[in-house]
Amino acid sequence: MTNVKIEKLLINYKTLEEFKHFKEYGNQELSMIEDLQNNIVENDSESPFFGIYYGNNLVARMSLYRVTAKYDAYFEPPQDYLTLWKLEVLPSYQGKGYGKALVDFAKANNLPIKTNPRINSHGFWEKMGFQKAHYDMERDLGENPLIWLPEGVQEQEIH
Amino acid sequence: MTNVKIEKLLINYKTLEEFKHFKEYGNQELSMIEDLQNNIVENDSESPFFGIYYGNNLVARMSLYRVTAKYDAYFEPPQDYLTLWKLEVLPSYQGKGYGKALVDFAKANNLPIKTNPRINSHGFWEKMGFQKAHYDMERDLGENPLIWLPEGVQEQEIH
Repeated sequence: MTNVKIEKLLINYKTLEEFKHFKEYGNQELSMIEDLQNNIVENDSESPFFGIYYGNNLVARMSLYRVTAKYDAYFEPPQDYLTLWKLEVLPSYQGKGYGKALVDFAKANNLPIKTNPRINSHGFWEKMGFQKAHYDMERDLGENPLIWLPEGVQEQEIH
Repeated sequence: MTNVKIEKLLINYKTLEEFKHFKEYGNQELSMIEDLQNNIVENDSESPFFGIYYGNNLVARMSLYRVTAKYDAYFEPPQDYLTLWKLEVLPSYQGKGYGKALVDFAKANNLPIKTNPRINSHGFWEKMGFQKAHYDMERDLGENPLIWLPEGVQEQEIH
């Protein structure tokens, strides 16, 4: 994998149409369509999504959001961290390093990262250097949180 | 569906072995095994799980946790509510009303309920009287929250 371009995705009808090809299509995407239709957001507003195009087609994406230190229940010392979700590469484009390129892009912020991956993707996340967070029921409920720790950051102890 | 017995599941090696038959087996179950092995919890401690047995076999389950009003970001007026996750009926036992029986059991507390269902189960939840919560990115991230409102409870407005 040498030169993959990661783009911040803008909310417009083309992007939202392309999102329909991804398995993890849900309330978030539907609410983006509604907001656009009702002029609650403008065409080409920024979104939390980043993606990779192959020619004209969106073939991989992820969503990334910065949580402020005040709400940090995972890392020590408590600090701003990134939540990563909906990482997905379309089936025909898998195995080319696009998933890794997106994760590397997230890591380049040098903030801790938390994700709640789908079952069966643990092998991938382990290769990416993520580890299981100690499960805490009140915090994690039905999640299977994985975390990535940059230099100097520890996991928060569960009380 | 007439007479289904819902049981509060106790943490012991038999229960934890049976959990392995369910698709949504993850960090939560693994941490329960560890806690039992390390004597952090006692044999037959209470768990957040409820289940239905057919003969000696656990064939359906769900997890239920009461969130205190202080953390309520979904309901109006803000109040204690239930989070429901890992509702699942083993394939050979589906279509017998076990899923509905578990949801009815949760509703009988007469508290609002929030769940984050797997994609493709929306038909079931709609039949159970659940509705989509308005999506709020900072609150919901990658979730597709569905809520159930008892009499007199509204959805919280998103700011």
